[in-house]
Amino acid sequence: MNEQTKKNLDELYKELRIIRTYDHAVAIIDFDFETCAPVEGRGDEGDVISYFANKKFAISNSGKMKRTIGYLYGHIEELDELDRILIRKLNENLEKTAAVTAKTQLKWLKIYNQAYIDWLKAKEVGDFSLYKKSFCAVIKASKEKVALRKNALPDLYDNLLNDCEKGVLSATLDKFFDELKVGLMELIAKIKSSDHVIRRDFLSRKVPIYKQQEFSEYVLKLNGYDFKRGHISTTEHPFTNEIAKNDVRVTTHYFENMFLSNLYSVIHEGGHAILMQNEPEEDFEHFINDSVTNGMHESVSRFYENVIGRSKEYISLIYPEFHRLFNEELSDVTERELYEAVNIVEPSLIRTEADEVTYGLHIVIRYEMEKAISAGKISPAAAKKEWNRLYREYLGVTPKNDAEGILQDVHWTNDFGYFPSYALGNAYNAMYLKRISSEMDFKGAIARGDLAAVNDWMKKNVFAEANRLTPEKWLLKLTGRPLTAKDFLEYLNDKYSEIYGF
Amino acid sequence: MNEQTKKNLDELYKELRIIRTYDHAVAIIDFDFETCAPVEGRGDEGDVISYFANKKFAISNSGKMKRTIGYLYGHIEELDELDRILIRKLNENLEKTAAVTAKTQLKWLKIYNQAYIDWLKAKEVGDFSLYKKSFCAVIKASKEKVALRKNALPDLYDNLLNDCEKGVLSATLDKFFDELKVGLMELIAKIKSSDHVIRRDFLSRKVPIYKQQEFSEYVLKLNGYDFKRGHISTTEHPFTNEIAKNDVRVTTHYFENMFLSNLYSVIHEGGHAILMQNEPEEDFEHFINDSVTNGMHESVSRFYENVIGRSKEYISLIYPEFHRLFNEELSDVTERELYEAVNIVEPSLIRTEADEVTYGLHIVIRYEMEKAISAGKISPAAAKKEWNRLYREYLGVTPKNDAEGILQDVHWTNDFGYFPSYALGNAYNAMYLKRISSEMDFKGAIARGDLAAVNDWMKKNVFAEANRLTPEKWLLKLTGRPLTAKDFLEYLNDKYSEIYGF
Repeated sequence: MNEQTKKNLDELYKELRIIRTYDHAVAIIDFDFETCAPVEGRGDEGDVISYFANKKFAISNSGKMKRTIGYLYGHIEELDELDRILIRKLNENLEKTAAVTAKTQLKWLKIYNQAYIDWLKAKEVGDFSLYKKSFCAVIKASKEKVALRKNALPDLYDNLLNDCEKGVLSATLDKFFDELKVGLMELIAKIKSSDHVIRRDFLSRKVPIYKQQEFSEYVLKLNGYDFKRGHISTTEHPFTNEIAKNDVRVTTHYFENMFLSNLYSVIHEGGHAILMQNEPEEDFEHFINDSVTNGMHESVSRFYENVIGRSKEYISLIYPEFHRLFNEELSDVTERELYEAVNIVEPSLIRTEADEVTYGLHIVIRYEMEKAISAGKISPAAAKKEWNRLYREYLGVTPKNDAEGILQDVHWTNDFGYFPSYALGNAYNAMYLKRISSEMDFKGAIARGDLAAVNDWMKKNVFAEANRLTPEKWLLKLTGRPLTAKDFLEYLNDKYSEIYGF
Repeated sequence: MNEQTKKNLDELYKELRIIRTYDHAVAIIDFDFETCAPVEGRGDEGDVISYFANKKFAISNSGKMKRTIGYLYGHIEELDELDRILIRKLNENLEKTAAVTAKTQLKWLKIYNQAYIDWLKAKEVGDFSLYKKSFCAVIKASKEKVALRKNALPDLYDNLLNDCEKGVLSATLDKFFDELKVGLMELIAKIKSSDHVIRRDFLSRKVPIYKQQEFSEYVLKLNGYDFKRGHISTTEHPFTNEIAKNDVRVTTHYFENMFLSNLYSVIHEGGHAILMQNEPEEDFEHFINDSVTNGMHESVSRFYENVIGRSKEYISLIYPEFHRLFNEELSDVTERELYEAVNIVEPSLIRTEADEVTYGLHIVIRYEMEKAISAGKISPAAAKKEWNRLYREYLGVTPKNDAEGILQDVHWTNDFGYFPSYALGNAYNAMYLKRISSEMDFKGAIARGDLAAVNDWMKKNVFAEANRLTPEKWLLKLTGRPLTAKDFLEYLNDKYSEIYGF
């Protein structure tokens, strides 16, 4: 490395440490906003988030930073492998934001913060019309954002998809979702024609929240989440956040009459957290630790939630503690009844409560809507009508109000493009499930409670290069095959034919 | 106001809004640090706090700020009353810190943060020797701080006292504490000679934490704390923080075998919060909203905790809910038994768990120690020995370990001078208790649950000018008399003669 390159790299690292300090601060305030902040304090707190996020943006996009990154991009062959990944990423971000002024950035941030506040209010009364204005503002901000980009793709939605899942565009997704849709429809038809009845009377029994809290901590620990470097809080829409290297936080929600909702939300978020707590040390040192795509991330969280969490072996593992803790409320539930109940297939309204099979159709609906709205084929104002129409057509259900309809998810308070990642996550993990099953006694490890062995395998194979490769290359290296919905459909057919007996 | 003054005032307000944004951010991160941050994440989070506190310090102490404040101080007669208070305060702070560089400030902040971390660790194992190094560092930092001040008082400890309770110096306090000590000793002797036995078997009964949480929220709401502008969390050492105008947070702790500990901690912190939630609107607009001294603040929190919270009328008010919620655990406790139990007088080890009577002696001990250490009469290394000696002499008790001895309080991770405020708080509120009792049916209002009437009176009389006057002037205006321990001793004698029958 020549001396000038070394100097630039040192300079860059110095700035990145400052930026990380801003990120750390904003992450904490953001976490606070969604878990602690009182209703009437949210306006001011949102302004504080905007203020510091904007300061950080100014540092990241200063002339000095641009020159440093520009220089290093021109001398990239002198750098080691991880610094190359870093510089490519920074250069790509700079190209995206080169034409964005601090003022514009601040304007967008305020739009997203306001959208979140409006969404909370609108959802509380279940009325989309209260959110419409912010919804339009968010979509307009996305358009502006893409319009200002250097090297933007011709299609608006492709840009947003690409932001979430680099290299995965709508041409690929159209094919993938078609394959998925057909397969799911066939499977749902088979399940519908089965006369097997799953017991469900206990699912809405009142289970005190403090007991659910205790069970949440039990499963998180069991799954390998490290509380010395973590924390769990309550929020409206559960999320996981890598606040800092030694601070990865899980959030959840509790409903007295729906204990399973909390349980699987916690296992899902815990999956995200286990990935974050097990990224390679060097990825932090090289500032590339937040580079895992949404789809890769969801593959992991849904692996813990569904492939592990809803397996016969896992239910058998947690059943004794379940029986002990919920003795007053659920002592009459057998292990098999619990296993079947966490795997009931039934079209429903709420994505996050949906079963593994119908879940994909919730994503198909959102994918089709995002694509159509982005292309201007549906106006934001008509979105609610379209949402309800698609739910009737694909799932045969109709929301009573918008809180269980178009307002159910937080995602549309920000850019489109995230939802497909959930379905990709299922496809990815079904593909690597084949490999882990061939290399170790996967089911046996779960049954024995040896999650450490599973986590070790995941760390070595799934997590190790997730920050460093694009989804396509990562998947190819991990499974030897390109994206397909087939493994996932096969996994579902195997599992549900046993449960429903067909 | 001349044009130049107007321009300077506008400039000042612009900077104060930015400083408030930093304060808001740091307050949230600090709150997070003490309520959420995982053990291994605390080091980095402490650095984030230091970083932004230091940035804020640089803004507050910039050449521009100094010139602006200097100009306005020279033209103070042109300003309105509240701006005069603001400018005097800012000028005084600047004089204190004029010689402090950003680097020195950062060094001190790191010492305090490290002290907090060390204190937590040392307290966990109950070993003062693990904290000694940080204790010395904090004391050294205080000395350095005072040494760099313009117009410092000749005595080190007087400066620290003055920082907490403007104008109240050790000459006044020596007299006050002597009067208090004699009075308390006499009263304790009377109580000791009484043969009345208070029932206490139920005080260590196991009460589930989730029930204590519910009761905490009940009393906070009852007392008039506004949850729309507030939030309650759990922490090691309870505190209340005015995060922002519409965000005043209370923290508490829960022990399964000590339900009263949580209850009175919550009422105490709730008292601080009620003051903060009821400061005059204009005090916020004029940036003087955090000017209430510790002693005034403690007078309010201890008014709610003791004068209201441990009164017969209040116990009668909360008894039905107490009986309903703790029906399984405490149904055999009568109202009178509860009243007497919250008022047991008995020398003990932990200040925050002490009764109203012996409490003052805990403060006397700390006051004497702070004075002696500041004067160099006791070395920090010998502090533990002196602590244990004084506890034996004044209270006749000896700590089993340092967690229940010298490490019990968080205060000594920061500058000395705070503790006397607790005792002053008792003296202040006993003095204004006389006035409120003469102007309204105080006891009747509590018995009826009309805390709103009490809060209204407090808002109009106690809170209204607490940001604007020094303790001395405030007390004189509020009660017509200068500081005395007599009212407090009288209040105690009236109350405890009825309970213990002498």
